[in-house]
Amino acid sequence: MHAEVALIMGSKSDWATMESAAEIMDELGVSYHVEVVSAHRTPVKLAEFAESAAEKGFKVIIGGAGGAAHLPGMVAAHTHLPVLGVPVQSKALNGMDSLLSIAQMPKGVAVGTLAIGNAGAFNAGLLACQILATNNTELANKIIAFRTKQTDTVLANPDPREA
Amino acid sequence: MHAEVALIMGSKSDWATMESAAEIMDELGVSYHVEVVSAHRTPVKLAEFAESAAEKGFKVIIGGAGGAAHLPGMVAAHTHLPVLGVPVQSKALNGMDSLLSIAQMPKGVAVGTLAIGNAGAFNAGLLACQILATNNTELANKIIAFRTKQTDTVLANPDPREA
Amino acid sequence: MHAEVALIMGSKSDWATMESAAEIMDELGVSYHVEVVSAHRTPVKLAEFAESAAEKGFKVIIGGAGGAAHLPGMVAAHTHLPVLGVPVQSKALNGMDSLLSIAQMPKGVAVGTLAIGNAGAFNAGLLACQILATNNTELANKIIAFRTKQTDTVLANPDPREA
Amino acid sequence: MHAEVALIMGSKSDWATMESAAEIMDELGVSYHVEVVSAHRTPVKLAEFAESAAEKGFKVIIGGAGGAAHLPGMVAAHTHLPVLGVPVQSKALNGMDSLLSIAQMPKGVAVGTLAIGNAGAFNAGLLACQILATNNTELANKIIAFRTKQTDTVLANPDPREA
Amino acid sequence: MHAEVALIMGSKSDWATMESAAEIMDELGVSYHVEVVSAHRTPVKLAEFAESAAEKGFKVIIGGAGGAAHLPGMVAAHTHLPVLGVPVQSKALNGMDSLLSIAQMPKGVAVGTLAIGNAGAFNAGLLACQILATNNTELANKIIAFRTKQTDTVLANPDPREA
Amino acid sequence: MHAEVALIMGSKSDWATMESAAEIMDELGVSYHVEVVSAHRTPVKLAEFAESAAEKGFKVIIGGAGGAAHLPGMVAAHTHLPVLGVPVQSKALNGMDSLLSIAQMPKGVAVGTLAIGNAGAFNAGLLACQILATNNTELANKIIAFRTKQTDTVLANPDPREA
Amino acid sequence: MHAEVALIMGSKSDWATMESAAEIMDELGVSYHVEVVSAHRTPVKLAEFAESAAEKGFKVIIGGAGGAAHLPGMVAAHTHLPVLGVPVQSKALNGMDSLLSIAQMPKGVAVGTLAIGNAGAFNAGLLACQILATNNTELANKIIAFRTKQTDTVLANPDPREA
Amino acid sequence: MHAEVALIMGSKSDWATMESAAEIMDELGVSYHVEVVSAHRTPVKLAEFAESAAEKGFKVIIGGAGGAAHLPGMVAAHTHLPVLGVPVQSKALNGMDSLLSIAQMPKGVAVGTLAIGNAGAFNAGLLACQILATNNTELANKIIAFRTKQTDTVLANPDPREA
Repeated sequence: MHAEVALIMGSKSDWATMESAAEIMDELGVSYHVEVVSAHRTPVKLAEFAESAAEKGFKVIIGGAGGAAHLPGMVAAHTHLPVLGVPVQSKALNGMDSLLSIAQMPKGVAVGTLAIGNAGAFNAGLLACQILATNNTELANKIIAFRTKQTDTVLANPDPREA
Repeated sequence: MHAEVALIMGSKSDWATMESAAEIMDELGVSYHVEVVSAHRTPVKLAEFAESAAEKGFKVIIGGAGGAAHLPGMVAAHTHLPVLGVPVQSKALNGMDSLLSIAQMPKGVAVGTLAIGNAGAFNAGLLACQILATNNTELANKIIAFRTKQTDTVLANPDPREA
Repeated sequence: MHAEVALIMGSKSDWATMESAAEIMDELGVSYHVEVVSAHRTPVKLAEFAESAAEKGFKVIIGGAGGAAHLPGMVAAHTHLPVLGVPVQSKALNGMDSLLSIAQMPKGVAVGTLAIGNAGAFNAGLLACQILATNNTELANKIIAFRTKQTDTVLANPDPREA
Repeated sequence: MHAEVALIMGSKSDWATMESAAEIMDELGVSYHVEVVSAHRTPVKLAEFAESAAEKGFKVIIGGAGGAAHLPGMVAAHTHLPVLGVPVQSKALNGMDSLLSIAQMPKGVAVGTLAIGNAGAFNAGLLACQILATNNTELANKIIAFRTKQTDTVLANPDPREA
Repeated sequence: MHAEVALIMGSKSDWATMESAAEIMDELGVSYHVEVVSAHRTPVKLAEFAESAAEKGFKVIIGGAGGAAHLPGMVAAHTHLPVLGVPVQSKALNGMDSLLSIAQMPKGVAVGTLAIGNAGAFNAGLLACQILATNNTELANKIIAFRTKQTDTVLANPDPREA
Repeated sequence: MHAEVALIMGSKSDWATMESAAEIMDELGVSYHVEVVSAHRTPVKLAEFAESAAEKGFKVIIGGAGGAAHLPGMVAAHTHLPVLGVPVQSKALNGMDSLLSIAQMPKGVAVGTLAIGNAGAFNAGLLACQILATNNTELANKIIAFRTKQTDTVLANPDPREA
Repeated sequence: MHAEVALIMGSKSDWATMESAAEIMDELGVSYHVEVVSAHRTPVKLAEFAESAAEKGFKVIIGGAGGAAHLPGMVAAHTHLPVLGVPVQSKALNGMDSLLSIAQMPKGVAVGTLAIGNAGAFNAGLLACQILATNNTELANKIIAFRTKQTDTVLANPDPREA
Repeated sequence: MHAEVALIMGSKSDWATMESAAEIMDELGVSYHVEVVSAHRTPVKLAEFAESAAEKGFKVIIGGAGGAAHLPGMVAAHTHLPVLGVPVQSKALNGMDSLLSIAQMPKGVAVGTLAIGNAGAFNAGLLACQILATNNTELANKIIAFRTKQTDTVLANPDPREA
């Protein structure tokens, strides 16, 4: 079976951020395909990747990029699949450039943007699962269980002064 | 049949922004339910709304809010459905506060954030449809047709100097 | 006797910041209760905590959180007690997101926001004491003494070149 | 009886913002004193005002100012009463300067900062009442009633498309 | 003869900004081609336009866009011609998003970014001419004359109090 | 003879920044007095210091502070002497808060603001000397010599690749 | 007698801001010379103006500019006279660019920066007078009188609710 | 033969950033001249350098500077050659000041601005080569080859999880 989620990023160095998306999809048992696709250095590949993503069987695309982070928006321009964008924390501007470049898309081409950095990548993976779960009760139950476990962990450790 | 998308917002005045989400869902034939649910003024209703949204049959929730825009994040905290957030342009800070409040969610509870203002609301409606279309070929085809029409309109009017 | 101040925060890691609030309340002899309550991971607990805070005997609530820091605002939405918010310094945006998420509350639900980080946490503890002291002359005198001592320490060390 | 709340501001033009604080105190029946006290143009008056505020019977001080908004912080430096600060929206920087000048106080002198503009002024008035209500059951009940009415108004008008 | 400069923009509404680029190229006698090419709505056209720009005879490409302004960067990704980017002033964030999206390009694909708005568009046209003039003495002389005239106009009107 | 420049700062920790002001005044032979004067912790001392500065013989006052940096503005409020302000780099916001708090003074009370951090402190010392030199030819000549030496040092080392 | 203050600005349109500097110098009886000197359009004039300013008899130079506001810094680079900079409010970024361009000068060349816009221009004029007054008792007395009058006006109108 | 590109910067410490511009020009075989030219410490040299750059045979000028980065804009004011600006990452504000100071040039004097830091410096070198290549087929082919190699390197390493 083909992977359900495409997890792409602009450069190898983005993996340190984007692996958090893989982590939650592993936990929830959702298949994903990981690949470096650069909007600026491999624009033809990006266009082909996005154009063919639906027929290859991907259901959701997660794109991570930093700085003038064009990857998620350009992928969205080439597909009707839902695209989620993760702003990678940039060196000079701490990801504020990445966040604005990904979030401020014009009317008619949408990217669902997550938080800057690893938390955002993790949540992109989680949101991709939530999207898939709109038509998959078993996955929905796994997400509910993950969320319940997450809640229980906080509830079980109410005192921040304990190690 | 129950509406597929819940389109909620923090106050009546947000409708001027959020109606753009309704506009595209109308065009694509996706049913939606519109309601004011305030995170700060009606927190109990918000919790109940979000907790019961899945069993009521909603598949996706769109939340719009401005300033300390807690609505989308708190809805996400109470449901496993995918939640999309629209930062409404605030009076003093032009929506930068709304954007950061919605996008910078912590690891484990996700909100897909769109652009500030009407473009973001429109795209939230569009992304909700794209999410539903992951399991609905007819809707996918409508989205493809909308996107093609959008492309064709730009292609047919290449000269910006003409009215 | 029940603690007068509830000192809550979104995660264990926030304690490194929020312990500064405990420090000054210890110094001024004000009782406080410390607990992790996450707006996003334990929203039901947060609602119950805030709803019952007044009848439990709390007089002031201090909430610390980082990023899309919804904790103080959501607590304020569920109680008529005064709520003070501490923006924890976030990784990417240095707490600017936390500050705006906490401070930019809409009309009708108030949070008194302090500075980003430990200085803000210390001042939240101090301000909680100042609030309690509006009806407690002994505590007011302790605060005046603390402030006098603070002033005297600066006055006694006027030369910054001395160790 | 002396007013319980001092409502001061840096210039006459700030009244258009600060009258929102008066509005809610009027509604909740809390007495207040209104006066222009400029940190920069009348620093001696400010010091005297703040130094004598407690013995005059004030319980809480609300200060509004814009730009390099030193008023709330300097008042706090001269009193042990709780001080609330309202960032007035400034011409060039929309109140971001006011917000940072008021919120980023150093360890040891606290100001509870509200949102920029009228919402913040309203909430300063409300929070002042909440502070007074920590020792006034009748006022607490009025606040609860105000909040309930506020909630009910939103609940009664759930459809943003209706006038 | 083919036009030397391609002057493209993301939407018709950008013309109000980008016509300032045309204004200076008209004055300096440099030929240009104007066309709407949207990175997000017509990504295939953008790729083809940029890929073929060199062989069509363009020497420089000017791209204007607002918000998540991907146009200049994506054009640069598809051509070895020099690309200049103009951040169009956006509605909510005044062009700060446009500026960061255009300027913060990654290593290996360059965009020369001008100022936000009409001044930037004018300067993009001027810089395109300066680039062409590196191999065109006649054009260089026209630019020198334009700059001299500009200087002389300021020198001739030293008193700002005169109409 | 009394020192010509008062070099004050909000806390001992500011000396690491403000010593750069002393460095250039030492080099130019201008006498200065160093003292910690805190706007928030020693407001009475600040008022007295500023009120008496002129009659004590100070000609210029340099004030350094970080965060809600009220020191320079409050000194200016209490004296007719020229006041220069140095924004100390703050922990969370890197001195942006300090810069805005110092620079955005209202009409009628002026502070000449320098850059954030050591460069700004050095330049505050230099500008204080330049102010004193408006009536001191010998000092003016020393400044000219310092500036010439500074220029010559750059001119003598034109190749950045050499150690 | 030659004017004591040079009041220069980058373009005629800056006069609407900079006339506030003239206003206070008129009131205090300090002579000034007004001229448009553009760092970018008349750089040679700027260099000559600044180089000769001291020998012409100017004591202080005030420069106003917006956007990439190089005027004050470049004037400072060419003279040992004290230079004050006024950030003119720019169209897109509201003067934040002007403020940073003027304030963030490197070590060794100083500009005393005032607030953005008319308040900053007024204060630049006032600070120029304060600088001149370090050696002019009559002028110092005028400044003290101006400040006293300013204080008295605020004191005489303590109620912001009165017209 | 004279170097084609002038690679100048405000201080020796900028070389750590600007050497990235040299790196790509070395790779593409474009000659360049490296020199420290400070707008503020050596303004006369800067003016002479820029005024004589064209007749010396330079075709393009790259200027790097940080903070109130006036170098590129002032060079552009003194020459009709194309000028590219590199914002060096500044200590306090991470290069946001440098970026705005370089990019926000007024109408009539253009600077093509690159990204903050080494990526921007590299791209400035690349863009200078692209400019020269508008009239040099051999260089154009080298750039195309560089870009192809860059693309191929990304294509050859699609899996970010591999070392």
